[in-house]
Amino acid sequence: MHSTTGLNMTIPEKVSDLLVKLDTTEIRSKEDLYPLELLQRATNYLAASMIFLQKNTLLERPLSKDDVKERLLGHWGTCPGINLIYAHCNHLIRKHSIPMFLVTGPGHGAPACLANLFIEGSLAKFYPQYSVNKDGLNRLIKNFSWPRGFPSHVNSEVPGQIHEGGELGYALSVSFGAIMDNPDLIVTCIVGDGEAETGPTATAWHSYKFIDPAESGAVIPILHDNGFKISEETIYGAMDDTELSTLFTGFGYQVRIVSDLNDINADMATSMEWAYQEIRRIQTCARSGNPIYKPRWPMLVLRTPKGWTGPRELHGQRIEGSFRSHQVPLPHARVDDDEFRLLESWLKSYKFHELFDLSDNSFIMEVLEALPKEELRMGIRKETYAAYEPLDLPNCKELLVQKGDNESCMKITGQYCSEVIKMNPKRFRIFSPDELVSNKLDATFQVTNRNFQWSHQTSNKGGRIAEILSEHTCQGWMQGYTLTGRVALFPSYETFLGIIITMMIQYAKFIKLGMETSWRLPIGSFNYIETSTLWRQEHNGFSHQNPSFINNLINMKYEHIRIYLPADANCSLITIAHCLRAKNYINLIIGSKNPTPVWLSPEEAENHCIAGASVWKFASTDDGLDPDVVLVGCGTEVTFEVIAAASLLKKDVPELRVRVANVTDLMILPGNGSHPHSLDNEAFESLFTNDKPIIFNFHGYPSVIRTLLFDRPNSQRITVLGYKEEGTTTTPFKMLTANGTSRYDVIIATIHNVSKFHPKLSIRTHELISLYKHKIVEHDKYIEKYGKDPEHLMDKPEF
Amino acid sequence: MHSTTGLNMTIPEKVSDLLVKLDTTEIRSKEDLYPLELLQRATNYLAASMIFLQKNTLLERPLSKDDVKERLLGHWGTCPGINLIYAHCNHLIRKHSIPMFLVTGPGHGAPACLANLFIEGSLAKFYPQYSVNKDGLNRLIKNFSWPRGFPSHVNSEVPGQIHEGGELGYALSVSFGAIMDNPDLIVTCIVGDGEAETGPTATAWHSYKFIDPAESGAVIPILHDNGFKISEETIYGAMDDTELSTLFTGFGYQVRIVSDLNDINADMATSMEWAYQEIRRIQTCARSGNPIYKPRWPMLVLRTPKGWTGPRELHGQRIEGSFRSHQVPLPHARVDDDEFRLLESWLKSYKFHELFDLSDNSFIMEVLEALPKEELRMGIRKETYAAYEPLDLPNCKELLVQKGDNESCMKITGQYCSEVIKMNPKRFRIFSPDELVSNKLDATFQVTNRNFQWSHQTSNKGGRIAEILSEHTCQGWMQGYTLTGRVALFPSYETFLGIIITMMIQYAKFIKLGMETSWRLPIGSFNYIETSTLWRQEHNGFSHQNPSFINNLINMKYEHIRIYLPADANCSLITIAHCLRAKNYINLIIGSKNPTPVWLSPEEAENHCIAGASVWKFASTDDGLDPDVVLVGCGTEVTFEVIAAASLLKKDVPELRVRVANVTDLMILPGNGSHPHSLDNEAFESLFTNDKPIIFNFHGYPSVIRTLLFDRPNSQRITVLGYKEEGTTTTPFKMLTANGTSRYDVIIATIHNVSKFHPKLSIRTHELISLYKHKIVEHDKYIEKYGKDPEHLMDKPEF
Repeated sequence: MHSTTGLNMTIPEKVSDLLVKLDTTEIRSKEDLYPLELLQRATNYLAASMIFLQKNTLLERPLSKDDVKERLLGHWGTCPGINLIYAHCNHLIRKHSIPMFLVTGPGHGAPACLANLFIEGSLAKFYPQYSVNKDGLNRLIKNFSWPRGFPSHVNSEVPGQIHEGGELGYALSVSFGAIMDNPDLIVTCIVGDGEAETGPTATAWHSYKFIDPAESGAVIPILHDNGFKISEETIYGAMDDTELSTLFTGFGYQVRIVSDLNDINADMATSMEWAYQEIRRIQTCARSGNPIYKPRWPMLVLRTPKGWTGPRELHGQRIEGSFRSHQVPLPHARVDDDEFRLLESWLKSYKFHELFDLSDNSFIMEVLEALPKEELRMGIRKETYAAYEPLDLPNCKELLVQKGDNESCMKITGQYCSEVIKMNPKRFRIFSPDELVSNKLDATFQVTNRNFQWSHQTSNKGGRIAEILSEHTCQGWMQGYTLTGRVALFPSYETFLGIIITMMIQYAKFIKLGMETSWRLPIGSFNYIETSTLWRQEHNGFSHQNPSFINNLINMKYEHIRIYLPADANCSLITIAHCLRAKNYINLIIGSKNPTPVWLSPEEAENHCIAGASVWKFASTDDGLDPDVVLVGCGTEVTFEVIAAASLLKKDVPELRVRVANVTDLMILPGNGSHPHSLDNEAFESLFTNDKPIIFNFHGYPSVIRTLLFDRPNSQRITVLGYKEEGTTTTPFKMLTANGTSRYDVIIATIHNVSKFHPKLSIRTHELISLYKHKIVEHDKYIEKYGKDPEHLMDKPEF
Repeated sequence: MHSTTGLNMTIPEKVSDLLVKLDTTEIRSKEDLYPLELLQRATNYLAASMIFLQKNTLLERPLSKDDVKERLLGHWGTCPGINLIYAHCNHLIRKHSIPMFLVTGPGHGAPACLANLFIEGSLAKFYPQYSVNKDGLNRLIKNFSWPRGFPSHVNSEVPGQIHEGGELGYALSVSFGAIMDNPDLIVTCIVGDGEAETGPTATAWHSYKFIDPAESGAVIPILHDNGFKISEETIYGAMDDTELSTLFTGFGYQVRIVSDLNDINADMATSMEWAYQEIRRIQTCARSGNPIYKPRWPMLVLRTPKGWTGPRELHGQRIEGSFRSHQVPLPHARVDDDEFRLLESWLKSYKFHELFDLSDNSFIMEVLEALPKEELRMGIRKETYAAYEPLDLPNCKELLVQKGDNESCMKITGQYCSEVIKMNPKRFRIFSPDELVSNKLDATFQVTNRNFQWSHQTSNKGGRIAEILSEHTCQGWMQGYTLTGRVALFPSYETFLGIIITMMIQYAKFIKLGMETSWRLPIGSFNYIETSTLWRQEHNGFSHQNPSFINNLINMKYEHIRIYLPADANCSLITIAHCLRAKNYINLIIGSKNPTPVWLSPEEAENHCIAGASVWKFASTDDGLDPDVVLVGCGTEVTFEVIAAASLLKKDVPELRVRVANVTDLMILPGNGSHPHSLDNEAFESLFTNDKPIIFNFHGYPSVIRTLLFDRPNSQRITVLGYKEEGTTTTPFKMLTANGTSRYDVIIATIHNVSKFHPKLSIRTHELISLYKHKIVEHDKYIEKYGKDPEHLMDKPEF
């Protein structure tokens, strides 16, 4: 244990006490760095003109106001910093032939990224209209932020990108996902000082604690500290060098602050070289069997003024080095004389005509010298668009269980995942917010370990499972891992997957555009499993009951989303096997962790999963036609209740013809062929009839079903039961009655809806409803007295 | 600028180099701390027995297996730590008569909180059945995690709580919100080492940078580092003392590590006293006009074994000090002999009979000596349940503008907020993720400043506005501020409010139970403004288009939610004035920031907002009755398009009787009186008819309207247009056509739906649809050519 008592730490008075002197032996000669400077002059010019110019893009004649775009869109402030970093990545790649690409947190610095991609020819590789010549230049500049041109944020249409950087916070974790199991790869990641304030970034700094230097590559995180956000100073900008060094040292890094504005290229080149050498030292030790204990990976803090090299001042107000350079620093340049003159002198200051040789129709040799050799350029790295190899998958048939067994959906899923891990030792990972055991997926620990490098136990290292109590980090890791061609699984408490709803939405947007982009090749699907679901939160209560992830997923483009609610272990197994095989989707599986009856034989389960929904004849009393009512279950626990309701109805109301159906693939529901899995009208009617009352007992919020069935004919016949925000620490059955989804509630809803069409029943309506309401009251009393559910409620219903 | 070059910092080899020696003068004598030890023995016993016992709760006879609960629910692991901290809060309160309460991040340690609240009599104050006597004790122990008893997480039914701690990450920011403008208050905040891994916590450590020690109180953050989460080591547990000290020093704190297991009470008492003295020193300096530059506030790291004092080992596996003590450490104690014996000796080890005097039916005097005087006990602090005072609000009428003006909804809202700030100098705050200027609420800066203590500019200090690029932190601050009786506003880019969807859901759960709890008095409403909405993201594109917050809000209990989409500035102003006046709700206002026509006069706007929706006669051609179609706008931009569509229809299809309606209060829509604002069927029909086609042009995802209107009669006549995930950096009008919400799309949908009922029109169906489709194509071409929308599209439609 920790024996030190009451430590009280202060920062030493002087920075120098804390700092090791800079090793200057690596500073490049001026000559060596000259091409880098030229490249930055070129990319800064291009970035600025993309924001401003629609004509005369090479300043071949004096600038006129008419050359300026009418709508000025874009973000200048971050561009010079990105250009600086991009140039130095190139430099490092040239020197060491490193496989490297860049993740740009400030993705709204698209002009900078595009400028670099253009000059290096990566744009032209994917978009011939942007060839490296005058025409291409013109087009690049004019089309930026123009309809059908590149937008003002890097997105999946932009080569070399695996992250958009629109919603801030995720660049760092995405970068770490990309380097996992890519031992040679280095990802340089720019974190803006605005982004650094987000929670997801703040905890992602810990990611290195989950990187095994023997098996994975490395990230060079660069905090780009330019001092300002949209309209305000940044926290990190207001922190002094000591504060920054101390903070990131505490996160486990070695820190270098790059801030010599008099010779930033020398400072940056030295720092990048240092970072590279430190990385190789750590990796070499680990790969030669002598791993460093808690290796301290390098990171850089780059302090440069926001909008550096841009206009200094306008009407007495500072622009360069202030928030006023965040977006368009001279917003009225087309109409205001002062602004126009400033724009002209600013653009001229880069002397672009010295860099692009019009007679030769190409950049001058010295600019091109700053680029890595062609196959190592960052915009064409295969990892970023063409690295997917399908998993080797076990045959799930061997794991399917017998009809009638009791089995946990998650346990059997865990067994399957164990096989997947064995067959794919370096291409499959599980990212989990520390709930793998709690979620009954611990079978995987029989074949692998966790991978927590800071652990005191070796048994916690070297495995396929990373557990961090940060859904944000898990999601970012999965994004980086998936978009670089591998496959991952993200199991989570159902409730807490909601934490990353907007990250999922951003990812859905990224792949929507990605799939519309011809040169992006397939990727593995995103695989979420929600378990420890709301219906079985008797340990945790109300705060652990939130099925809202489904609601948000169904707003995404139907092409990309798949949502499954398998009602038993066999269906779960078939579903996970399908999801791990599928490409390009966002898969969500809702699975129960407690043992529940296996309703379907292996063969039946397979047919059921292929159909997405079917009538469960064993529980139905309509002989396959003309039911009085259709009871639908969608989700494990609520389907159990539907079956129990049907069993009771068979006994108590034998005259009622009841059909029981189960929906395992949620997206068969919406009408008009809107989802690729949508049932056509005929199939829909053959399951649900075209006019009979439907009692739909749903796992999540009723709003999901209301939305999906809105367009189906006669939707007013549908009664949707589901979670309605009632809950606490209580018994499982009490949760069902509190939310109106128990067998009795299903029966009561049935009788309410059917009796008007069913003369015999209508006489008994009152009697029957009283009977089942009374049962609820009786069970309540039992539960209150004994603190548990009556046991017979768990019995498999009889037919 | 920063002139230091390439700093390279390392951790000194020895911890001792970094640490100032512990000041031991404050260590209490054993005698002084004895009552604290007794109190912890009592609370540890109570916490353990709450989890395990249903009978024989005071061990008056030998324990039998039958005394053990059948369902063992609860979390033991964190309880001893909470009990330790609670006791030392009491001690500090006793010594200095401080107003203090506790925010417990590990809210699943409810048994510990309840034990303390019971002994101090706070439970009894609100729940007489838990009086401090044997009956109360019995009830407390038996009823824990029992239906109708207290649940296993602290929630709003538990006295003294303003935070549940079910979804981890928010304790720290909530604590900071509570102390703002409460200069004497100290909130002690326990952050579990699991919670510390979350992003929201990781960035909330910066909160002190927004606390002015002259005007606000202080938080004592205690990182409770017990080494384990549910099933895995924690990151912070695996960090050594140097790493922890360095990290939190970097965040700006003075750090003390409390870890002397041989004399933890002395260590803790000294540390709490030190923290208190440091706080008072910082506050005294600031309040006497000599504020310390970047004051370094105190924080503690408490390192104790998980489940300390619990069973050490079971079947050779470690329990105490391991993840196995997280929940129920002896899960089979009722049936397993070994576990039962361990349970018995564990419970006996606290010698509870020495602490509770059965003959006197009360705790012994020495235990009670550990408690503060009655009015200072943490469970009854008014701040936590009874501190709300309504704001003084200006009359909004003076700011309303003339019909026909062009005005920005946000700008006028900003003017109103300025008045609110002036009238409520210490009771109203704005928390914003750095977009106040971008969101056009900058009028507020004419009357106040930001409040960023780390800023280099004094103009950035001392104000009512806190801007941090962390929606999580803003939300936590607002929760703490609101639940302690004040009122706040959270304006955000529409898209990024989604980041805190689950925090909003947790808050909704907290207040749902709070309002069912008789002793909790009213609180101000939560006030969200979403602006910079998806329709006007021409700078930012696809990643900035996400209206999903509404979808999630409508799943919450209807009693607590209010959603407004005012279509012009006057309606916006009336809405914000209403929201700031309202109690107990979660208000969401969607507001446009660009100037748009003011459709309604002040009086009309008032009537419209009271009704929630009305027919806009100026744009209708049905003479108030028997329309052929009802066009509905809900949201600023889409309403503009509906009005433009009506104007075109009047000209092009004069035979069509068009009714135009606007919905400003979304919650008038759902049927069956389900929401307090729901229109009854008659009112609904008088607006929307009972059978005519409705074209509903909605600001957000169509799923919202589908859900809300599902139960309304003849819902199949409703066509919902809205955002369908199409977007990029483009022109505003292109965004509308891309998503099918432009005036032309409204007309096309109208003609599709109406023509079958309208013989004259049906002849022209094809011609008209071609005409308007052609217009879309024409505009597209213009936009592509000129990079902007045709200007006439922004003209106010004529009637």
